[in-house]
Amino acid sequence: MMKIHDFKGFPNPARVRIALAEKGLTDAVQFVTVDVPGGEHKGADFLAKNPGAAVPVLELADGTYISECTAITGYLDHLVGEPVLTGGDLKRRAVIQMMQRRAESGLLDAVATYFHHATPGLGPEIETYQNRDWGEKSRARALAGMGYFDQLLQHQDYLAGDQFSMVDITGFAGLIFADIAKIDIPAELTRLKSWRARITARPSIASI
Amino acid sequence: MMKIHDFKGFPNPARVRIALAEKGLTDAVQFVTVDVPGGEHKGADFLAKNPGAAVPVLELADGTYISECTAITGYLDHLVGEPVLTGGDLKRRAVIQMMQRRAESGLLDAVATYFHHATPGLGPEIETYQNRDWGEKSRARALAGMGYFDQLLQHQDYLAGDQFSMVDITGFAGLIFADIAKIDIPAELTRLKSWRARITARPSIASI
Repeated sequence: MMKIHDFKGFPNPARVRIALAEKGLTDAVQFVTVDVPGGEHKGADFLAKNPGAAVPVLELADGTYISECTAITGYLDHLVGEPVLTGGDLKRRAVIQMMQRRAESGLLDAVATYFHHATPGLGPEIETYQNRDWGEKSRARALAGMGYFDQLLQHQDYLAGDQFSMVDITGFAGLIFADIAKIDIPAELTRLKSWRARITARPSIASI
Repeated sequence: MMKIHDFKGFPNPARVRIALAEKGLTDAVQFVTVDVPGGEHKGADFLAKNPGAAVPVLELADGTYISECTAITGYLDHLVGEPVLTGGDLKRRAVIQMMQRRAESGLLDAVATYFHHATPGLGPEIETYQNRDWGEKSRARALAGMGYFDQLLQHQDYLAGDQFSMVDITGFAGLIFADIAKIDIPAELTRLKSWRARITARPSIASI
């Protein structure tokens, strides 16, 4: 049986839990809790699974560890059929990979960097290096990312086009993290807010 | 005909040029120079192609713009057969996607951040925000990344296993960038150096 090593409620674990729910695979994996608030992800046991010290990690039945949400989601997506989260044809796959990077670097990672560098983050035991100026710069980048996706939603229903994809999951996790980091969506970004409301109603997201 | 908008000799453009050469597709694309040293990538015309303000960008025959080297390489990889750069089966694809992120964040992006933040980079007109402390931190991350891949090469011939893949291209571009940024590979990382020598002998890399 596959295992997911993660910590429930955190933004990146939420990405894979939503993908599992979309694919109907939640009951096909066993969840193993990694005590991230306690620093377990920085210990030798966990680093042997993911030297990047981040959850979630997918453990395949043969013992292979797969980290990085994009890699995990791609794997899960191809195990079973609908809905296709990473693109059906070649062009759509390329667009989704591209937009996934934009949602990560322009929103989710930007928020995370703000959280870990310009707020108390996970506390002084975990946040052993902080760079406030870089954190504040990343906050501005996150807001610019919100604005970018709001603009896109003028012409399309989802972040990577007219169909739901893993990019929507990444964007949604970015907004969960923005809540935690207390970065409000600017009031004028009404399309982003209504997209969020629509996404939140999906059973996969309501379930986590 | 497909187009590649890039600037020859820069590390990220090199990634796609190597992938094209590996796939025998170099003559199937038209190269369009973007004057990055002159700041053209930050102008409105280019931002309409890639709001991330980075080369390279693949322009498909239908006018679609694909940025992000991973997305471009995946697209090109599936156009024609051998060698497979992004993985044949599901598990290998996942491993390559995971290792690609490690090669990007732990090496190439780390070197780039050092270059843009803790050195003169592309000059004061282009580098309008620098954070020296973050740059130095990123230099340390790049050196750690070199050490990580050197360790891996104890048990495998290439960065993502026993076969050449896009991760090797990314790692190679990271070392090109390290040369530009004057980050030397530590003398003791002999496996990384011999991997680099092996990779450099590939016709695709010798050709760029």
